[in-house]
Amino acid sequence: MSCLGALSHLVRRRAAPPAPASCASASTSTLVSAYTSEKASLAPSAPPRVRDTGAQLAALRKLMDEEGVTAYLVPSEDAHGSEYVASEDERRAFISGFTGSTGTAVVCADSAHLFTDGRYFVQAEEQLDDSWTLHKVGEPGVLDWSDWLVGQAEDKPLTLGLDARLSSYTAVGPLVKALADRNSAVHYPTRNLVDVCWHARPPPSLAPIYAHDIKYAGVAADEKLARVAAWLGKRGSAGNAKTWPKGSAYFVSELDEVAWLLNLRGGSFAFTPLFPAYLVIAASEGGKYRATLFVSPLLLLPSSKTRKYVEGLDVEVREYDDVFRFLRSGEWKGAPAEGSDLPKLVMSSTASFAAVNAVGEENVALQPLSPIATWKARKNAAELAGMHAAYRRDGAAWVRWAAWLEEAIVHKGKAIDEWTAAKELHRLRTQDPLYAGTDAYPSISASGEDAALPHFETPEDGTARIIDRETPYLMDAGGQYYDGTIDTTRTTHFGKPSAEQKRAYTRVLQGHIAIAEAVFPMGTTGAQLDVLARNKLWQDGYNYMHGTGHGIGAFSQVHEGPQGFGRASGAAMVPAPLDEGMCISDEPGHYEAGKGGFGIRIESIFAVAKAHTHRGFGGADRWLRFERITQVPIDRRLVDHKLLNSDELRWLTHHNESVRRALLPLIKHDRRAVKYLQKQ
Amino acid sequence: MSCLGALSHLVRRRAAPPAPASCASASTSTLVSAYTSEKASLAPSAPPRVRDTGAQLAALRKLMDEEGVTAYLVPSEDAHGSEYVASEDERRAFISGFTGSTGTAVVCADSAHLFTDGRYFVQAEEQLDDSWTLHKVGEPGVLDWSDWLVGQAEDKPLTLGLDARLSSYTAVGPLVKALADRNSAVHYPTRNLVDVCWHARPPPSLAPIYAHDIKYAGVAADEKLARVAAWLGKRGSAGNAKTWPKGSAYFVSELDEVAWLLNLRGGSFAFTPLFPAYLVIAASEGGKYRATLFVSPLLLLPSSKTRKYVEGLDVEVREYDDVFRFLRSGEWKGAPAEGSDLPKLVMSSTASFAAVNAVGEENVALQPLSPIATWKARKNAAELAGMHAAYRRDGAAWVRWAAWLEEAIVHKGKAIDEWTAAKELHRLRTQDPLYAGTDAYPSISASGEDAALPHFETPEDGTARIIDRETPYLMDAGGQYYDGTIDTTRTTHFGKPSAEQKRAYTRVLQGHIAIAEAVFPMGTTGAQLDVLARNKLWQDGYNYMHGTGHGIGAFSQVHEGPQGFGRASGAAMVPAPLDEGMCISDEPGHYEAGKGGFGIRIESIFAVAKAHTHRGFGGADRWLRFERITQVPIDRRLVDHKLLNSDELRWLTHHNESVRRALLPLIKHDRRAVKYLQKQ
Repeated sequence: MSCLGALSHLVRRRAAPPAPASCASASTSTLVSAYTSEKASLAPSAPPRVRDTGAQLAALRKLMDEEGVTAYLVPSEDAHGSEYVASEDERRAFISGFTGSTGTAVVCADSAHLFTDGRYFVQAEEQLDDSWTLHKVGEPGVLDWSDWLVGQAEDKPLTLGLDARLSSYTAVGPLVKALADRNSAVHYPTRNLVDVCWHARPPPSLAPIYAHDIKYAGVAADEKLARVAAWLGKRGSAGNAKTWPKGSAYFVSELDEVAWLLNLRGGSFAFTPLFPAYLVIAASEGGKYRATLFVSPLLLLPSSKTRKYVEGLDVEVREYDDVFRFLRSGEWKGAPAEGSDLPKLVMSSTASFAAVNAVGEENVALQPLSPIATWKARKNAAELAGMHAAYRRDGAAWVRWAAWLEEAIVHKGKAIDEWTAAKELHRLRTQDPLYAGTDAYPSISASGEDAALPHFETPEDGTARIIDRETPYLMDAGGQYYDGTIDTTRTTHFGKPSAEQKRAYTRVLQGHIAIAEAVFPMGTTGAQLDVLARNKLWQDGYNYMHGTGHGIGAFSQVHEGPQGFGRASGAAMVPAPLDEGMCISDEPGHYEAGKGGFGIRIESIFAVAKAHTHRGFGGADRWLRFERITQVPIDRRLVDHKLLNSDELRWLTHHNESVRRALLPLIKHDRRAVKYLQKQ
Repeated sequence: MSCLGALSHLVRRRAAPPAPASCASASTSTLVSAYTSEKASLAPSAPPRVRDTGAQLAALRKLMDEEGVTAYLVPSEDAHGSEYVASEDERRAFISGFTGSTGTAVVCADSAHLFTDGRYFVQAEEQLDDSWTLHKVGEPGVLDWSDWLVGQAEDKPLTLGLDARLSSYTAVGPLVKALADRNSAVHYPTRNLVDVCWHARPPPSLAPIYAHDIKYAGVAADEKLARVAAWLGKRGSAGNAKTWPKGSAYFVSELDEVAWLLNLRGGSFAFTPLFPAYLVIAASEGGKYRATLFVSPLLLLPSSKTRKYVEGLDVEVREYDDVFRFLRSGEWKGAPAEGSDLPKLVMSSTASFAAVNAVGEENVALQPLSPIATWKARKNAAELAGMHAAYRRDGAAWVRWAAWLEEAIVHKGKAIDEWTAAKELHRLRTQDPLYAGTDAYPSISASGEDAALPHFETPEDGTARIIDRETPYLMDAGGQYYDGTIDTTRTTHFGKPSAEQKRAYTRVLQGHIAIAEAVFPMGTTGAQLDVLARNKLWQDGYNYMHGTGHGIGAFSQVHEGPQGFGRASGAAMVPAPLDEGMCISDEPGHYEAGKGGFGIRIESIFAVAKAHTHRGFGGADRWLRFERITQVPIDRRLVDHKLLNSDELRWLTHHNESVRRALLPLIKHDRRAVKYLQKQ
């Protein structure tokens, strides 16, 4: 699912992605931001477009008066920095009428301001009514919302109101100080003012939480919790040998970490099998742990099997909303050691401002790189086996779909639109017994210039473009299966590709191959390998303004840190070395915008594995390589063979041959698919 | 001159080089440090080995008592962080008897401690007498000198004495605070205690300063000074739009920056045509500058032509030692603007602790990336023309030398030792009318396992190894010419190379080619390209534990920042993008240590130039490539052609052919050389 991932994570966590120097120019950094977590607005629950925001603005301003704030912040994030927020959390869309996934609203007494980036300028102009001023962040001289607020305070002191649960400490902390220096203050009303005036606010999902089968999870939850307790007892952040003071605890607010630690999954969000919750873990006597889970009893019914499973783990279950009282009260603290430092509450740097404030800055230890994220990223044998199995079955569905599409367009000359094509792949997926009821992200089914937008949103409303035979057709789609999360992109062509289309496709393929073939020593980060994917593209003056790939979860989020090909990914604020078992996407692309434009991307998922080199495994300095998990053929019709060297050609032939061997047994009943697969 | 450079700079400036992740393992990071500025000890002026340090230790301790300090710090650096320190600055060698280039001595009342890294353990054990304790930094649990001092203070408060001119603010600043927290203090005796008791201290060099011809410098000194003044008037550090307060000034303590700004050169150091001095530049009315040069009148005689030239630049000349009085007095300050901030003294982060203290921390603005270093790095047309001319003439000398060496060893069967070979190349160089009287660094002439040490020091004392015909022979040598600084490495073989030798050589060559052929967009850093040089080596489990290359000066230091293939190079503490006109070395290698071991390195210098791609120059996002400056053939006898793809083979053929065309006219009188060149 492209670049989107690698960056979206960073953005949603408000850690500005250090644009690769190759994207350093102004134009391109706008592009980069333009590719970030654009999916949320596609969530089925997206609210209807609002044309007149007069009423809700009036209501909000009345509440602002009552609370004595002159400006109110309405971010697009939820309390956990989720990639796909639930509909009841789409406050910024409600108040502004702007439904794009990224954007921040600031409502003042007599003005309202929306800040968003390049890809949403058009949509925002269209959706915002006259009450709103659009700030086109990225354009020269346009400040982002927090710098803008500081500027306002320079002119005239203000009182900013915000819901501290919805902003990260690292994002708002500096703003609070900057405003204080300008005789301005920040207030934290006890209620979210938007929620109060949002009468038709959708109710939260009631999809129950369920246990994730150990045969897919591989490691039992109590083992994982004990590992956190042991880590607390032993050492601080990676590479740092200091011990945490006795009585310290770990506060987990990342939903993918909560779900992974407890081997639980839920249905509260579109596309990701997670649920809203907080988890606090402390070390107790004898290497045991004490854990408290904060979750709504509506999602974890008191008498339910899942509830019994959780309690069987010695995890105390409390009301979701109790968490802040729990943090404030210091209940999380264990007994400190005689005369040693006071206990710390360890949490990821992405924790909310509310969480840090409740505990008190001085009692918090922020982790730029969450150890839990790193453990989760290193998939165990069961998780890897599940990923391989899921990609094999999904590859079979993909080939059956591709065969159908080609027959319909090329042989039967049917007019198939992008949405219909996407729907059919979705239908085939849902037939799998392990299909978990949702896709992993909204499919990007794109023909012609639609494909030039890596974040293209295939419209459901009948306006989708008919797939043409002059330009490449790009499909980026993935499903959620109980044994794995899918993210696959292939590009094909139903007619006679132009020389330029073939050249670009071949360069992208060469970049994909260079990563797939890489061998590297332990300690290497994805950022170091990134240029291998760009090298051949750069030779021709091509480039893509997004990351080369992102980590991916096992029946979890499609975008998962800390590994990636960017400087840092996921919740990680520091680059993390690639390590055995980590799964990562390899997806270079090329995008030719405008009339007659087209888009190309080739994406497969790889797991990091031991490499055996001419000099062996290298003992202490272990050598690593990428092992392919994705099983979908790569289209050869777009290849310009003159550009491939013999090694690359051999790689491509072997790739499609091994895919054929893997998939044939699963599709032999579908003669059309068999024929298609043989041809590749 | 290998890796050495890229890292040595960092080390001598006391900015710990972030070891590339590819060198992350303990073993390798030791190796990395092992390749740093090991040259100083080769400086002709290296003092004789001292066996008994009893006398000077007693003398120093007496002075310590007088000054009331319980520990005294003796670093290996001079006041300017020079790569090659002058003999009168080799205080640590004098006090400890250890002559290695890197190492720090701490003398206490009843113990003496030397801290050095992996490559010097053997030498230090051999040279240190019983009064000394050796601290093998890099070995598990061994603290470096500053952490060790903090540890000592934990046990028992101490009073540390040091010469603040010899340590950088960024290095000592934190130590001072850490000691203060432990009831310990730092004293700054007004005299350097080692100098006081160093009776036979060599006198400083009297080699006069001279003007660097404008036809090589390209830009006049007053233009460069005006540029600094304009920068002060306009903006702060790169990418930071803030203006410096009116009356601010720039303090230059980097000797290569002083020499470049004034178009002056000197002879005070081995291998680099520089001289000890400080320069302060301020903006004055009407876009003009005010500049003050602090330099010894013995190097710039009052009546000399050079002195007149300097005064002609409106540069006030003062005594070298006046600089600290000048800084303390605030004389550097211009008139501040009404009600605006007070003037700042801007200086590079590598400035000495003494300089920052003299001005007062609050009045100093440290630059992690010196703008002067960046301007200097972007060579102008005259400097580039000079580099091309110098490398062409030096290439001719190299080929004449290589032809002689091959005839002597292969055809005449003579026994030539490494030192004799190096001497002959040096002799041929000195015949050039523009030869500036010194090599750019001590030649590394290495056969067999000697070449496995990238920092091998070819012994002059007759113990040099006879160049054998079983292993590759590596020559890394460069001269200083008035029109350019040379740094070239080639590896050859005088017998029948083994399959393993050919494989390693070919992988190194493929890495060299990958960099040479790279095309990249503006804003790309060397660190991003680094993996291109390692990719083919990694395929076979080979790696080299040093940077892929370093910036190089034009008749200046052989190692120059800020560009490089490491995370950051030279004085730069942040990675700097490659930009047009920057010169950089491309020098991957392979090192097989131990009996029967060997070493391989292929090094050429390239200038960054505009690239014309399939899609043109790319307008705003300019495309860049490397243009080769070095003109020395690459040996084909060590190539395993099976490993090369067709592009690489074409590159190699074209390389040697274009070198042949460039050099033939210069060597036609030397039939042996012509024959050798034709054969390549």
